Amino acid sequence: MARPIIIDCDPGIDDAVSLAMAVASPSLDILGVTTTFGNVGINNTTNNALRVLEWLGSSVPVFRGTDRALLSPAFDASAYHGASGLEAPALEQPTRRAETTGAIPFLIDTLLKHSEPVTIVALGPMTNLALAIRLAPEILPRIAEVVFMGGSTDFGNDSPAAEFNMFCDPHAAQIVLSSGVRCTMFGLNTTHQVIASPTEMARVRALPNQSAAVFADMIGFYEAVYVKTNGFDGAALHDPCTIAYLVDPTIFTFRNMHVAVDTNAGISFGRTVHDIWGVRGLAHNTQVAMHADSARFFDLLRACLSRLR
Amino acid sequence: MARPIIIDCDPGIDDAVSLAMAVASPSLDILGVTTTFGNVGINNTTNNALRVLEWLGSSVPVFRGTDRALLSPAFDASAYHGASGLEAPALEQPTRRAETTGAIPFLIDTLLKHSEPVTIVALGPMTNLALAIRLAPEILPRIAEVVFMGGSTDFGNDSPAAEFNMFCDPHAAQIVLSSGVRCTMFGLNTTHQVIASPTEMARVRALPNQSAAVFADMIGFYEAVYVKTNGFDGAALHDPCTIAYLVDPTIFTFRNMHVAVDTNAGISFGRTVHDIWGVRGLAHNTQVAMHADSARFFDLLRACLSRLR
Amino acid sequence: MARPIIIDCDPGIDDAVSLAMAVASPSLDILGVTTTFGNVGINNTTNNALRVLEWLGSSVPVFRGTDRALLSPAFDASAYHGASGLEAPALEQPTRRAETTGAIPFLIDTLLKHSEPVTIVALGPMTNLALAIRLAPEILPRIAEVVFMGGSTDFGNDSPAAEFNMFCDPHAAQIVLSSGVRCTMFGLNTTHQVIASPTEMARVRALPNQSAAVFADMIGFYEAVYVKTNGFDGAALHDPCTIAYLVDPTIFTFRNMHVAVDTNAGISFGRTVHDIWGVRGLAHNTQVAMHADSARFFDLLRACLSRLR
Amino acid sequence: MARPIIIDCDPGIDDAVSLAMAVASPSLDILGVTTTFGNVGINNTTNNALRVLEWLGSSVPVFRGTDRALLSPAFDASAYHGASGLEAPALEQPTRRAETTGAIPFLIDTLLKHSEPVTIVALGPMTNLALAIRLAPEILPRIAEVVFMGGSTDFGNDSPAAEFNMFCDPHAAQIVLSSGVRCTMFGLNTTHQVIASPTEMARVRALPNQSAAVFADMIGFYEAVYVKTNGFDGAALHDPCTIAYLVDPTIFTFRNMHVAVDTNAGISFGRTVHDIWGVRGLAHNTQVAMHADSARFFDLLRACLSRLR
Repeated sequence: MARPIIIDCDPGIDDAVSLAMAVASPSLDILGVTTTFGNVGINNTTNNALRVLEWLGSSVPVFRGTDRALLSPAFDASAYHGASGLEAPALEQPTRRAETTGAIPFLIDTLLKHSEPVTIVALGPMTNLALAIRLAPEILPRIAEVVFMGGSTDFGNDSPAAEFNMFCDPHAAQIVLSSGVRCTMFGLNTTHQVIASPTEMARVRALPNQSAAVFADMIGFYEAVYVKTNGFDGAALHDPCTIAYLVDPTIFTFRNMHVAVDTNAGISFGRTVHDIWGVRGLAHNTQVAMHADSARFFDLLRACLSRLR
Repeated sequence: MARPIIIDCDPGIDDAVSLAMAVASPSLDILGVTTTFGNVGINNTTNNALRVLEWLGSSVPVFRGTDRALLSPAFDASAYHGASGLEAPALEQPTRRAETTGAIPFLIDTLLKHSEPVTIVALGPMTNLALAIRLAPEILPRIAEVVFMGGSTDFGNDSPAAEFNMFCDPHAAQIVLSSGVRCTMFGLNTTHQVIASPTEMARVRALPNQSAAVFADMIGFYEAVYVKTNGFDGAALHDPCTIAYLVDPTIFTFRNMHVAVDTNAGISFGRTVHDIWGVRGLAHNTQVAMHADSARFFDLLRACLSRLR
Repeated sequence: MARPIIIDCDPGIDDAVSLAMAVASPSLDILGVTTTFGNVGINNTTNNALRVLEWLGSSVPVFRGTDRALLSPAFDASAYHGASGLEAPALEQPTRRAETTGAIPFLIDTLLKHSEPVTIVALGPMTNLALAIRLAPEILPRIAEVVFMGGSTDFGNDSPAAEFNMFCDPHAAQIVLSSGVRCTMFGLNTTHQVIASPTEMARVRALPNQSAAVFADMIGFYEAVYVKTNGFDGAALHDPCTIAYLVDPTIFTFRNMHVAVDTNAGISFGRTVHDIWGVRGLAHNTQVAMHADSARFFDLLRACLSRLR
Repeated sequence: MARPIIIDCDPGIDDAVSLAMAVASPSLDILGVTTTFGNVGINNTTNNALRVLEWLGSSVPVFRGTDRALLSPAFDASAYHGASGLEAPALEQPTRRAETTGAIPFLIDTLLKHSEPVTIVALGPMTNLALAIRLAPEILPRIAEVVFMGGSTDFGNDSPAAEFNMFCDPHAAQIVLSSGVRCTMFGLNTTHQVIASPTEMARVRALPNQSAAVFADMIGFYEAVYVKTNGFDGAALHDPCTIAYLVDPTIFTFRNMHVAVDTNAGISFGRTVHDIWGVRGLAHNTQVAMHADSARFFDLLRACLSRLR
């Protein structure tokens, strides 16, 4: 039976790739897509989620989420993702709209009413989920797992210490991590191993499907920043690691540990802190992805794209 | 016309006095009482709110609120307020219960639907209000004013730097203070000027009403801590300053300034920071009570009690 | 017998007034003046100390101190004190120079060798003293008292939370406060009660001495900032409170308490935190001035100036 | 010509191994050994430095340093290093004593007077060096390089975020890192690649020298903690990486970047923060060791031990 998931995202290029992979995966049952501010503002991320799903022919409903962090000021990653957050000419403006229900009521209602616990895939700042947890703590036992892209066991990208999603709303992330829910983390230490190199992208483009070219173009759009800033061979495919894990967890290796997020002012604001050696004896709350088998990830990506239009 | 208010509180002795004063004040129209954790846990504070209102013969509905802070661990002030938070033998257990609607939906619905903007009187940690604001920012223009007891321009009481309500949930307080809503603050610098001295309490007890003795006993319950810890002549009546202000603002003097709350780890966690000289040029978001006319406060307290059973 | 003191200062207008009062006080034996960066850079503060002392006819030696804080970046208060830190045309450039020994070796040697414990009067950032303490902890029992201008029990002036001297080097101040040495603090809460009003300044100017006019002009130089920023009736005479206390402690009232300085990033960086109610049970390390008898302060100021040229 | 170095250390087992390697290396000219608190208190670390050097037949002078951090409370690593910090029965108590000059004056004098710039090898908290820099900034151009063991690009060991030496005195480390001096860092990310496995230790013990057995026993003393806490195959040889680098830098690979230390309260206190992608555009102040060739390290260790008694 397909695993029920809700995807909370801020598309964004790699969010769009994640949506495509999820839609293409029969083992996943997408109950809804909730949107969050993040890569760009909430209007654009909501619109982009609708564009991607409509282009994919998916009728998964979209629920608009919160437009700002609990306490942090807003940031903008349009330097990476383009002004609209998703510069993809092939994807027309959507004909349908977001549901009238907001993301947080949708999260609460669905978690409480679905026949089995639901997995939350969090691809942006975790403000929606944190608010839902504080508003309705009774949802906690109904969350099967929170699989999130965010943080880093080593270097940050939005500040020297912090990864973008955590930096956008460290307080929300800390609410989720300290809630007792089971978390699986894909941080930069692992997503930086999943690089859309020219070789891999050539193999994607060689697919006959229309999707292959569209998503390859999309990924190509932010390749240049990674080459220049990080010296990589191509763009890092952060968010799609979460979907790849849900489809085939053996693509990654993990370590269980306690993870917290630094919410204090100063140079470590937004950093994830990992008690890998158990020096504080805190309960393990997260399985942290430590290594990705990049070749197998791209095998899966191509397999997914092959199933799309 | 009476001013519509919602009282968000964690009774608590001085919360109970505040409820009594508000019920006795014809110029105030209490739309509801919402409860918060704080002085003691949410079960006790909700129960205490019901006990006080029922004893007063008030049918104002009570809405149970959040049981924990956004991020801070729980504290307990039962050393001040007694194990139940309100050691008042005269007040029997309530026969009615809290409404089935929670505090946050009640806040949002009432603010959006009431015919005029509503004043929020916040007597505990401001978690309910902060969550309501982040969940439904459209309530902001519907809030006439947030009148809160909390913070201090000088010394803390829960830590050297921080007052109890702010310390319990500094992140929530900062969400409210930075929301653009108009705030009026009664901090320890002013509430410590409103002391229930033996002389004042004797004058209260001289009233013929049953309420006078009941509330005097209640106040007497936490007098000892103030005498010992602070060297005061009696208990400080923190929360009731807010109601006194709503009935007669001339009891206090004020300065307008920017106020923020320190949410960072370390010795100033939970402290309010006051830009009285405008050195950062930030917008004035709060009128801060600087001085109380204690004699006139007690005149008002007696006048209120005189109107009760 | 005169009390032996070392004055560690960053002249600065109110430092200059302090030097004048100290030179004029037979009960004080100034062993040396050490300089620190602060109001302006170390070159200017050292030069200004020499100018003031030479104009006063004092041969007290001057020892140049550290040019920067332990960790904080440099600030500049020339908006208050003028470009040179002491815009006083009457005071010519000095003919003598600072000693070749630096401030820190002088502090250590003098404390260890003087026949009795020495009082340190700290009128700027306490970097010199903090370094001396860490370098030679054996000086601690040789310090009779550290009398410092800095901090505030209520509002800051350099940031909403922090007073200038503390903000300049909070780490140094915390080293001194936590060293076990006896401290006496004159913070803004008290120095803002000592205002050089037009009436007081007229009485100063009425003195026949040349000094009266020179120092009145000096004080007048930074009056405008206080009138505009703080709405005061004239300039606050911060630093001279320390000398007034040493000559006549009854001008002030005090409370003993534990004081610490916040060295963490964020809005309370550099704030003094005061455990006035003993809520943390920490040892009293500081007698904090709570109130100044301004009239008696100005009586003393005039008496001092009367004894000068 | 041999490279002039001063070793600032807190022996400590791996400090002792470092001293042995340095004494055995003709390319290094040890001008002096300065001691710091750290693994154990300053009395023990000073005594241990003397014991090791005397046992090695070295007459390098030892200068006792500071006994505490700038601001942090003291910690103790005797759980790793044994009660004395160096449980090595073969090493008798020293017959000579530390010099009467302290570590900080020695550092300042030597740096100013030596014919060429001197390299500082910092194997413990950097308090001595930080104080020397603030006391005598004119030494900065006389420091060829600061080669330190400390920090981590990934996980901490003393807290989830921080490595022991940084945690002991983050303020001192930040003074050094921000001083403009050229730094080379060996953090846990690299020193955890240099593991004294049973195989490697068997090869050490196979050497005919007395030193081989003595230092192998010493290393064996703290092996158990690493096996249990970290799941390693043996003890990590942190400090000796610095000496190995000075003798043969090609054993390691490096990346240049800006490094700072978090000095703020909270979960990242003492963490090194690395701007590897240049997201803040700060000047590169440190070459950070990223990888160690463990086999070649142990070749060098054995070569060094072969040259000793």
